Amino acid sequence: MSRVLNNVGPMKEETRKRVLQAAAQLGYVPNALAQQFARRKSGNIGVVLPFVPKVHLFSTYYFSEILSGIGETAKRCGYDLLLIFREPDGARDYAKLFRTQKIDACIVLGSQNVPEERAALAELKEGGFPFCLVNQRYDEEQYETVDADHFDGSKEAVRHLVEQGKRKVAFVNGPAQYSNSADRLLGYKAALSEASIPYEEQLVYVGNYSRKSGYELAGRMAEGIHAGCIDAVFAGNDRMAIGLIQGLRELELEAGQHYALVGYDDSDGSRIISPRLSTVAVPFYEMGRIAAARLLDSSSRNPSSDTNLDILPVSFINRETS
Amino acid sequence: MSRVLNNVGPMKEETRKRVLQAAAQLGYVPNALAQQFARRKSGNIGVVLPFVPKVHLFSTYYFSEILSGIGETAKRCGYDLLLIFREPDGARDYAKLFRTQKIDACIVLGSQNVPEERAALAELKEGGFPFCLVNQRYDEEQYETVDADHFDGSKEAVRHLVEQGKRKVAFVNGPAQYSNSADRLLGYKAALSEASIPYEEQLVYVGNYSRKSGYELAGRMAEGIHAGCIDAVFAGNDRMAIGLIQGLRELELEAGQHYALVGYDDSDGSRIISPRLSTVAVPFYEMGRIAAARLLDSSSRNPSSDTNLDILPVSFINRETS
Repeated sequence: MSRVLNNVGPMKEETRKRVLQAAAQLGYVPNALAQQFARRKSGNIGVVLPFVPKVHLFSTYYFSEILSGIGETAKRCGYDLLLIFREPDGARDYAKLFRTQKIDACIVLGSQNVPEERAALAELKEGGFPFCLVNQRYDEEQYETVDADHFDGSKEAVRHLVEQGKRKVAFVNGPAQYSNSADRLLGYKAALSEASIPYEEQLVYVGNYSRKSGYELAGRMAEGIHAGCIDAVFAGNDRMAIGLIQGLRELELEAGQHYALVGYDDSDGSRIISPRLSTVAVPFYEMGRIAAARLLDSSSRNPSSDTNLDILPVSFINRETS
Repeated sequence: MSRVLNNVGPMKEETRKRVLQAAAQLGYVPNALAQQFARRKSGNIGVVLPFVPKVHLFSTYYFSEILSGIGETAKRCGYDLLLIFREPDGARDYAKLFRTQKIDACIVLGSQNVPEERAALAELKEGGFPFCLVNQRYDEEQYETVDADHFDGSKEAVRHLVEQGKRKVAFVNGPAQYSNSADRLLGYKAALSEASIPYEEQLVYVGNYSRKSGYELAGRMAEGIHAGCIDAVFAGNDRMAIGLIQGLRELELEAGQHYALVGYDDSDGSRIISPRLSTVAVPFYEMGRIAAARLLDSSSRNPSSDTNLDILPVSFINRETS
């Protein structure tokens, strides 16, 4: 019926009259949402986010920077940002957001390689709904993706530690469901291999990218440092590195003095903690900006590009802890 | 017509038949958005935010904490969060977001006491659209508001400096369009008055709550410190305080040594900078949570309360700079 009231589409004049008559009797007046609805356009770009109780998500450098980049592009293109918190358990129905016209396009953050998530993304693809992943790859699928070169960043970080004469480099990785965790492990191994240092599985620890998970590893790490099994640590993000600094400080071990440490992300925290944290800068803001532009700004598309995957460069930053 | 197809509202049987017949001819099928539309419900809570080019808004402690609190409540109540960036210039039409059913309720952040903003809020009020302000009061209006006790927080901060024997306390305030800036000035004056220290206008500086604006005040502040006109500084937020620490450090003046310093907000940065910054803790997360609950969660309303203004307590935190 919107087609009648908004004068779009072919319509028999008789039908048109009948509908308008019925509409008038029902007190129907056209409004902007109904008009958008007829054009199948909400004016919103959706951003799917993980929901973690008690974690102040927007206060994490990672999400806040990506969101700021998405926001910049959305604003420029005249879109509002609809934030959708992912249900941690159970079915995920991202396609419904399109079918109910809540959003016109979607950026998926914090995506994990688990069956529920793969099913939800496959449904989006099948439905032809425009979406883009940020910082997560599904190599077997051809999804639009903006990622960063975490293999290279990790290799640089560990290579730097080796160049400082470190031979016993522990690695604190994040969960394996994230492609960036897998990339970092490969980069870590590549740097060791390059220096002819054998890879030892017992030097690889796993946290969950929270400060607390780094803090809680301090005890085991301290044993390794005292026993001479660890002389340096590469952490998969700055939050875990900062937790580790704090935990090891309570055990009277100082970063940059008793052990070398490199974090990852170049977060605000890495710049103002003492000693200042060596780290790897990742262009999260830019990644968000690019992902949104791919979906919203047709002028930003490179027609000659035949790839749907952008991998942005990262850079090692040497500070006081290494 | 939605009333016919969704079986809501009174309807003559004859009218009903005619509309359903017209709908069938037009290939009309009900969908979730149309159904929500008939119920005047989008399932979204709007959050109006300032847009500042080049500033990574979500990376500021202030906004990220409030948004995290709003997000927690929205998730609990089954709402998605629609972020709307305010047009810095020109007319502001928040009511349109309701009229076009993009949102069911609205939280306004970073609201300033300027004519365009007052007009937009008055229109919301007139239209009966549910909204809530956070950290900004318009004392002449009865708007739903969640604020914090910045008068008391500032008085405590300056009282602490006076108790340390400081008599020449400079104040770096933010712009006057924010009620919290006005509150802090009153608190500053009250603490001086309590200690029988005359108020001197030339000791009040104005930044814009950015780190840079604090940094840029360092030169003038250094002159005052060297001339013996300033022995302590109270900054209206931590970002300006941190900018000041960095700027004064370049001029070889150290916080906690050459001058005492208290910031405001208890941001992450205040806890990890060296020396650790004395500050005032503000429950921003809680403020966001409460504002959203007022709008979305009828069970959270206190029926015996006859006020639409919550003022949450703040607390002084003594660290190394004072």
